Amino acid sequence: MKAYKFLETQFEEISILNDIASILNWDMSTFMPEASANSRVAQLTYIEKVRHKKICKKKIKDAIDEASHSHDKLSLWQQANLREIKRVYDNYNSVEDTLIQAYIQASGKCEILWRSSKQNNDFKSLCEPFSELLKVVRKIAVSKGDYFKIDPYQALIDQFDPGRKIEDIEQIFEELEMFLPNFIDTVKERQNLKPSLSGTFLKEQQKRFCIETMQIFDFNFKQGRLDESTHPFCGGIPQDIRITTRYNEADFFSSLFGVIHETGHALYEYNLPKEWLTQPVGHAFGMALHESQSLLAEMQIGLSNEFIEYLQPKIIKYFNLNPTLFSVNNITSYLKYVEPSFIRVEADEVTYPLHIILRYHLEKKMISGELEIEDLPFAWNESFQKLFGLTPPSDSLGCLQDIHWPSGAFGYFPSYTLGALTAAQFMHKINRSIPEIKSNIRKGNLRLIYEWLKENIYSKGRLLSTDNLLITATGEKLNTKYFIQHLKDRYAI
Amino acid sequence: MKAYKFLETQFEEISILNDIASILNWDMSTFMPEASANSRVAQLTYIEKVRHKKICKKKIKDAIDEASHSHDKLSLWQQANLREIKRVYDNYNSVEDTLIQAYIQASGKCEILWRSSKQNNDFKSLCEPFSELLKVVRKIAVSKGDYFKIDPYQALIDQFDPGRKIEDIEQIFEELEMFLPNFIDTVKERQNLKPSLSGTFLKEQQKRFCIETMQIFDFNFKQGRLDESTHPFCGGIPQDIRITTRYNEADFFSSLFGVIHETGHALYEYNLPKEWLTQPVGHAFGMALHESQSLLAEMQIGLSNEFIEYLQPKIIKYFNLNPTLFSVNNITSYLKYVEPSFIRVEADEVTYPLHIILRYHLEKKMISGELEIEDLPFAWNESFQKLFGLTPPSDSLGCLQDIHWPSGAFGYFPSYTLGALTAAQFMHKINRSIPEIKSNIRKGNLRLIYEWLKENIYSKGRLLSTDNLLITATGEKLNTKYFIQHLKDRYAI
Repeated sequence: MKAYKFLETQFEEISILNDIASILNWDMSTFMPEASANSRVAQLTYIEKVRHKKICKKKIKDAIDEASHSHDKLSLWQQANLREIKRVYDNYNSVEDTLIQAYIQASGKCEILWRSSKQNNDFKSLCEPFSELLKVVRKIAVSKGDYFKIDPYQALIDQFDPGRKIEDIEQIFEELEMFLPNFIDTVKERQNLKPSLSGTFLKEQQKRFCIETMQIFDFNFKQGRLDESTHPFCGGIPQDIRITTRYNEADFFSSLFGVIHETGHALYEYNLPKEWLTQPVGHAFGMALHESQSLLAEMQIGLSNEFIEYLQPKIIKYFNLNPTLFSVNNITSYLKYVEPSFIRVEADEVTYPLHIILRYHLEKKMISGELEIEDLPFAWNESFQKLFGLTPPSDSLGCLQDIHWPSGAFGYFPSYTLGALTAAQFMHKINRSIPEIKSNIRKGNLRLIYEWLKENIYSKGRLLSTDNLLITATGEKLNTKYFIQHLKDRYAI
Repeated sequence: MKAYKFLETQFEEISILNDIASILNWDMSTFMPEASANSRVAQLTYIEKVRHKKICKKKIKDAIDEASHSHDKLSLWQQANLREIKRVYDNYNSVEDTLIQAYIQASGKCEILWRSSKQNNDFKSLCEPFSELLKVVRKIAVSKGDYFKIDPYQALIDQFDPGRKIEDIEQIFEELEMFLPNFIDTVKERQNLKPSLSGTFLKEQQKRFCIETMQIFDFNFKQGRLDESTHPFCGGIPQDIRITTRYNEADFFSSLFGVIHETGHALYEYNLPKEWLTQPVGHAFGMALHESQSLLAEMQIGLSNEFIEYLQPKIIKYFNLNPTLFSVNNITSYLKYVEPSFIRVEADEVTYPLHIILRYHLEKKMISGELEIEDLPFAWNESFQKLFGLTPPSDSLGCLQDIHWPSGAFGYFPSYTLGALTAAQFMHKINRSIPEIKSNIRKGNLRLIYEWLKENIYSKGRLLSTDNLLITATGEKLNTKYFIQHLKDRYAI
């Protein structure tokens, strides 16, 4: 017990370091002036160094071993916490400190440069630091692969979605690749023309409407913020959640649904078990589960007919719009319009998985060494043509569009689609368990949905494995059935 | 040399910790949601703990001793750096870690509560945490006093304005107390009525004008920001300076001159010797010198006839104002109107020193134990009546107005007035050395002033003591002569 308690104290301090890094990262992506980049990288590098040193101490290893011996004296939560502490320890110990330092330096540099290179559609200027970063990421993947005796790319997946097997991903992605192309054709044939819902939606007004919508989702502004950044995200810490969006004054729906998406992430963080926040077991589970929450808010709730029916009169009133043009039907047709396009974050939920499948195959090759950065634009465009029947007119609309790779996040992309599947599976279960859900959504009352999620997902932290969490909550392992059914129900009218 | 180099490496890391704390503090005062207060206090407490541990190591002490023995092998800058490193070490070592932890906790808590208690004019609710904080501050003062064998209040002064003697402050404040009351009466008799320059100045427009004015002062927005906070300040780090202001839509001048004030602070930080930024010798000298820079910008430049002549046509055009009402004469009379009033930060430069003298006497008594927090409102109002002939109608307009004491800063206030004196002394010297200064200000060209300051002040960091820096730059120790002359020149028309 003493050994376990020692670990808890150590991880409490590590949790403070994590929190500090979160705030610094948020600032870096929102308000930080550009000349501060080097000093910010130095700050984050230093925090990482201290964290690494704290976690990789022999004392930690010994305490883990000792606590594991008297495992049965621990409560269920403590046992799970010990398992998660060991996971953190192994993750850190699987890579040399110098390699992590190199990663932070390289990713910091590459991410900063990516901003201007994306803006100027200048892949060339990014090529060198990007290749440098990929080299470091490969080394990390190999080092982790050796440590855990698994495939290097599997080791990267594990970082973001612990316990997720490549074989499962392959199977799921194959099923989607089988289903989607034909389905997309069918939808395209049958759907109405996309109505033009353009207008001028002042940024400040959009922001206020977004804030009101976040409050419908029970976002507490005493405990969080909404700001702007180039790439929307949910950052901060559970007590202080900071989501961001970007505003387009010609299109109000993109910021609104972006904000609903990030609010889904926020609710997960916000409702994690308070008494375990400073311990690994109190953290959110992998990114797929996190993404399931943002997509549940955005796609399952936000895009449902019931929610659009609820929102439409509010929107009309708020922006003083023409009710005939901005009718429920037109808004629905507009928001659910399916069309292969270049930008992932702007894609509809039907074509979205193809964006992910493209990235999945490319990053697998980048990690294995089959694909080098200099060949990425070509490979991207070729795959894009194959999957979408289109070729991106520029790298900014192609391989430069996402922040993930230039910031060093390889193995992250699959989470988006696995999250979409998970969300559909949860929503199916919620609809089954609580018959009045749809009528509640129509009234803007989301309480019962979030009570179910709090009870079955949020409050669990990392108590269970993702698979077990899903099985406990829905009775099944993750599969494509509910997502495909959801698409059929919504689009194949 | 090895010992000295070891110290440099250690203080480089400490500098990163300082930088992180600066950003977290900035965030706390600008954007942080209130529910984050506890976790932010935990973060800052942790950083302080790490910093304390790093600085108070026996290894540091030994290295200081060893480096001091081969002092003559060091360059002048290194010698000064060693002296400043020793100052930091002694400062930390003069107080127990537990006491510093208690201070951070108590001041964090009290500062947060002060915000609402000021807003609600509710001194009572602050009384307990405020007394708690004062107790801790007294202990710190006594501990420092014992360590350095000086008076406890002198020890607090040294924290903010190293090397400043209470005797000098007493003499300066006595001279000002002798001069000011009669002088204020004379000015009040002679001055024009204060013109009413009210209007509606939209916040966004004010902000843009402030930004343009900051640029006249050579503030670089790639290297800093302007935001809002309850109490304006200059924070961040030299590479990333973050100043704040607050906007009053009925009075545009208060934000403008607030911003000019903070820009003065910013320019000092921004122009510190780049190669020494991570070392104690590269930091700005005490707060009096810092305040001399904000007041040089605000009072010596900003309020000069020449600068008002330069600004007036721009203001007229920008806000589309009536040029007869907003004439140079009227703006001058408005900005230079002298009138005893309740709020220090809104006071004119003639009555301002009386606000400081009041606080100086009260805080001296609070530290010595002659005055308790519960008696502060009474003591404040009594002193105020004596010095100003007025009694504050509420504590919000009285002893609750400043953030300093509730955030634990005792010994800080004298810097404001010593800074005003220093600014006058610098400006006198600059005018003597560079005859074209006034005509340059009239054109909005401040380059020569800032070149003089860079060369004589900013680039020196902490190479010299404040006294020596002043003597080297102006030929004289700090005295009241130039400030009094400045007031006579400007107000006794």
